[in-house]
Amino acid sequence: MSSWDYDLIIIGGGPAGLTAGIYAGRARLRVVLLEKLIHGGQMMTADLVENYPGFPEGISGYELSDRMRRQAERFGLQIISTEVVRLEPGPPVHRVVTVDREATAAAVIIATGANYRRLGVPGEDALVGKGVSFCATCDGALYRDQEVAVVGGGDTALTDTIFLHRFASKIHLIHRRDRFRGAKYLQEQVLNLEKVQVHWDTVVTDIQGAQGVEALSLKNVKTGEVFRLPVSGVFITIGITPNTDWLKGLLPRDDQGFLITDAEMATPIPGIFAAGDVRAKSLRQITTAVGDGATAAFSVERYLESQRRG
Amino acid sequence: MSSWDYDLIIIGGGPAGLTAGIYAGRARLRVVLLEKLIHGGQMMTADLVENYPGFPEGISGYELSDRMRRQAERFGLQIISTEVVRLEPGPPVHRVVTVDREATAAAVIIATGANYRRLGVPGEDALVGKGVSFCATCDGALYRDQEVAVVGGGDTALTDTIFLHRFASKIHLIHRRDRFRGAKYLQEQVLNLEKVQVHWDTVVTDIQGAQGVEALSLKNVKTGEVFRLPVSGVFITIGITPNTDWLKGLLPRDDQGFLITDAEMATPIPGIFAAGDVRAKSLRQITTAVGDGATAAFSVERYLESQRRG
Repeated sequence: MSSWDYDLIIIGGGPAGLTAGIYAGRARLRVVLLEKLIHGGQMMTADLVENYPGFPEGISGYELSDRMRRQAERFGLQIISTEVVRLEPGPPVHRVVTVDREATAAAVIIATGANYRRLGVPGEDALVGKGVSFCATCDGALYRDQEVAVVGGGDTALTDTIFLHRFASKIHLIHRRDRFRGAKYLQEQVLNLEKVQVHWDTVVTDIQGAQGVEALSLKNVKTGEVFRLPVSGVFITIGITPNTDWLKGLLPRDDQGFLITDAEMATPIPGIFAAGDVRAKSLRQITTAVGDGATAAFSVERYLESQRRG
Repeated sequence: MSSWDYDLIIIGGGPAGLTAGIYAGRARLRVVLLEKLIHGGQMMTADLVENYPGFPEGISGYELSDRMRRQAERFGLQIISTEVVRLEPGPPVHRVVTVDREATAAAVIIATGANYRRLGVPGEDALVGKGVSFCATCDGALYRDQEVAVVGGGDTALTDTIFLHRFASKIHLIHRRDRFRGAKYLQEQVLNLEKVQVHWDTVVTDIQGAQGVEALSLKNVKTGEVFRLPVSGVFITIGITPNTDWLKGLLPRDDQGFLITDAEMATPIPGIFAAGDVRAKSLRQITTAVGDGATAAFSVERYLESQRRG
């Protein structure tokens, strides 16, 4: 066990955490970023990021992540691969406990992100970024004049279906129940779209394809009927889970578990901030993550200055 | 006079407006962006943008702006050079009046930005981006071990002085009065910094330099004494003015004139949104502008869907 002392500990190495690291590094804070796996977060799973401004031809999630990491390191950010298991809040000093060490800091930015819920069927993991997508806003435009499927029945599934209707030649909306959970006016719109076919009481049992998605195996849960549906893409919209379990209720969360902050990214505990997908907000994108990360780092600076006042 | 009809009109072509354009274009909205001068906004004045994630070696404001514009146009955004003079709000239809035409749309995003207040002295305009800066967070790290000046006496002047203390060999804080306006605890910190020299009752009368800033001419307003101060950079922090005058009080503003929105970028008028520097918020950076622009475009999509419900 080693013990550290920092101005700021950033937990999570996706675009929110890396951007906070760029700003904090440039501000010459004593800062470290702790990341469980590899930097980049969800961004790493994207074959082609088309909507992050500055890359007219798009950029792979891997390369964008690597560029952000190099930029942060250039400004002095230290990145350590370790898994955080506990936060023991102050103030004035917060303690972060990982699987193999502990660290104390005056400020903490939680940027642990969120994961899209997966179906857990064969073929799914292998085809993520190759036809399996969790984000129509990100990837929808890639499916112009192609046949795609959307899995789910909530607001996101319906909104994504409406969105995809602008591109795809046909959209199969696959829902395991006999009615949607999403807003009534979204349901009405979806049911009026000519290119949409709804498959009620139906679940996906596997996703097939070699280089990319080729077809889904579907099963009607009422009749037991099994059939094969050829599509070139499938959007899985069955929920998103923030990585907040490790906080064990320490900070206020919304009903889906996302951390609630103010506009300056502050949680109710002085010196603890949250940024990126882990935060309760309307749109989870790289664009909004970098905005959050910059704002959080700036709030940390102001917080540290106010702490010095005494 | 021609007359248009759009889903969305974006007013302003800085990073917030261009990002909203990328998202709205990808969503296949009928969208136009109106820009008074040239796209890019304040970003265009930056020689080197070092803290926009994705460019490890930095990028010129001009090139970043151009890349964002090409990306937006690739997704179908139409950009028109014209100056907006009036907004006649609905809902359901908002009318935008420019110097040479009119347009109607279901939704409007105001992204007209803000301008840093200038001293109005000889040499200032010519040396912007060449030693004259309005943003210590952006440019401070370029002045390591160099002598710089900060002009102003409010919170920003004091915070920037504290920030610059990490880099510069000496900071001259130039204030036209005999006391600061900024927060007391910031004043105390600044007065305790060893590398800071405060010039009370002093104004800048010109900025000298050929390729970059070389010196300032200063004048003590009480004694009339005039002297020359060699510095390699000057940070002018005497306020920032949002470009909201043309709105003539149509929308609620804070005491500095910035537009007040909720976290989804909505103003109180349904269908009218604001994004970027023009908005009341804690940090005005390209990072936060792109986050705002994406969120605003997403909110527009949801607004348009809700309008179709009838």
